[in-house]
Amino acid sequence: MQKKEEMASLTEINDVWDYYKKDLVEVEDQLRKNLDSKVLLINKASNYILDSGGKRIRPLLMIISSSLFGYTSKEVIILAGIIEFIHTATLLHDDVIDNSDIRRGKKAVRAIWGNQSSILIGDYLYTRALSKTISLEVHEINYSVSQACTSMLEGEVLQFYHNGNINITEEEYLNIIEHKTAALLSAACRLGAIVGGAKEEEKDAISRFGLKLGTAFQVADDTLDYIADKEKLGKSMGKDLNEGKITLPLLHLLRHCDSSDKKKLMVMIETNSFEEKDLHYILTLMREHGSIDYSLGKAKYYIEEAKKELPIFEDSPHKKSLSILADYVATRDY
Amino acid sequence: MQKKEEMASLTEINDVWDYYKKDLVEVEDQLRKNLDSKVLLINKASNYILDSGGKRIRPLLMIISSSLFGYTSKEVIILAGIIEFIHTATLLHDDVIDNSDIRRGKKAVRAIWGNQSSILIGDYLYTRALSKTISLEVHEINYSVSQACTSMLEGEVLQFYHNGNINITEEEYLNIIEHKTAALLSAACRLGAIVGGAKEEEKDAISRFGLKLGTAFQVADDTLDYIADKEKLGKSMGKDLNEGKITLPLLHLLRHCDSSDKKKLMVMIETNSFEEKDLHYILTLMREHGSIDYSLGKAKYYIEEAKKELPIFEDSPHKKSLSILADYVATRDY
Repeated sequence: MQKKEEMASLTEINDVWDYYKKDLVEVEDQLRKNLDSKVLLINKASNYILDSGGKRIRPLLMIISSSLFGYTSKEVIILAGIIEFIHTATLLHDDVIDNSDIRRGKKAVRAIWGNQSSILIGDYLYTRALSKTISLEVHEINYSVSQACTSMLEGEVLQFYHNGNINITEEEYLNIIEHKTAALLSAACRLGAIVGGAKEEEKDAISRFGLKLGTAFQVADDTLDYIADKEKLGKSMGKDLNEGKITLPLLHLLRHCDSSDKKKLMVMIETNSFEEKDLHYILTLMREHGSIDYSLGKAKYYIEEAKKELPIFEDSPHKKSLSILADYVATRDY
Repeated sequence: MQKKEEMASLTEINDVWDYYKKDLVEVEDQLRKNLDSKVLLINKASNYILDSGGKRIRPLLMIISSSLFGYTSKEVIILAGIIEFIHTATLLHDDVIDNSDIRRGKKAVRAIWGNQSSILIGDYLYTRALSKTISLEVHEINYSVSQACTSMLEGEVLQFYHNGNINITEEEYLNIIEHKTAALLSAACRLGAIVGGAKEEEKDAISRFGLKLGTAFQVADDTLDYIADKEKLGKSMGKDLNEGKITLPLLHLLRHCDSSDKKKLMVMIETNSFEEKDLHYILTLMREHGSIDYSLGKAKYYIEEAKKELPIFEDSPHKKSLSILADYVATRDY
């Protein structure tokens, strides 16, 4: 009865954040507790980026996943902290690689403390995360974490390789985001299931759920890069474009616009120079050719695919939360 | 009898390289085999740095250490490859952090393929190394590798923190190099002993041997930075100084020169500008005040301390090789 009432009370994403609030607060404590470097700068810059409004999607996914199998304990909190550290480490290196000065609407670490700090602190958080993983002494957990890291790196490398490549196919694009983003969200789900003592087929199902949700998450993010309100998204419009990243909306546009527009776009991408008016021109073209709708539709498609993994699980507030979280990922406008 | 003959035939470092040649060739194969990225640039740049004349001191140490306990197998070769990958990853990130264009007398990866590649490929090699470690499924090995990585990062961070700090103490300097350099050489020794099935006290002794040898190695390296023939060392004289690294010879000089020279030195370090004539001035002062002899003496002291760990081991070509390697580390002039 109580379970049914709880399920009924969960209707939107804020209910989900509230429902797992206690665990999420513990994750925050865990993150801060792991920052015990003797060097002040490390703690200061790490705290700065951890405080900069990350949504903790990965920890939340892990907590819900382990709860789905009836388990929440200290180990989940530790692992959630590990995954968030790994995620943060990649942001610190990404900002250097992309020459980004803005991260989540605030100055990037590199813009305050320099590239050197951003690289070193990324290395530090990554190493801390892996050494914490190893200290749990569970081979299955080690594999899951290290496979996610390897996958992320492959995604980063592929993205770098395809930088500015206007001939990138949708398949190549999806392969990149599956590696660089979805793999870690998938690992968060799997790790929750491992700690929760799930059966093999359950682990596989929840991993697939995470992979598809992660793909939708990145497709939505890449689309929001063109349409989102700067204040809400915390980055300037067209940031990806400025960094030479050919994401789904642009990829769609390049395939559907006429040859004179395509030529103009190619020149812009090659010379890598965009003014405000160019971005508006691109956005107008995108709306004209349905590129934005196509991309948002793709994100929704992956969410529906993700949700197809859920029926094998018993109804519970956790299962419902996964479903709400999935919908949120494809429709968020922050 | 054969053992005695073998021992007699080992008299200098080249004999040692020759003695373990077969294993070292296998390590080279292993390193190349691990480079199977789908992205050509990764393999190309990784091969480039692996081919650039690294001495493979860490793999050699590991092979000798495991041989000391009567064991050489595929596992040692794999672990030796892991340690060399980790070492290479740190070089790639160091070059970006230090803005170095030269590494081992050749253009640094960053000078050819850019900072972004150097960061990404460093991350890639590091992640490959850790995932290979985990795949061996031995907790003790995991701990040893991850502790070495954590220690190295702490050393890097401390070095960065003390950059340009003329008040750094000898103790702080030694602490940095113990973390950033000696910890990995120590881990190479310990890992060899773990795989070789050594007893706990043997593992500890060989780890201490590696730590002291590693400290001597870095002190010698830092001294050679001032006196070595550019062609032999493969880097320009005073590179550390240009990067704001206050190493032992300079630290000694700052403590012993008169106040007017000290003032001049402080201005040079603060403004970070050195011309050829400044370096000659510094080197002359160092010779005058015995700073070079002091540093080389310190390296030799650590070598003697390292060798004190060896008597507990039975006489063998391997034990003799460790001793020869130790002497080489403090006296090398390449």
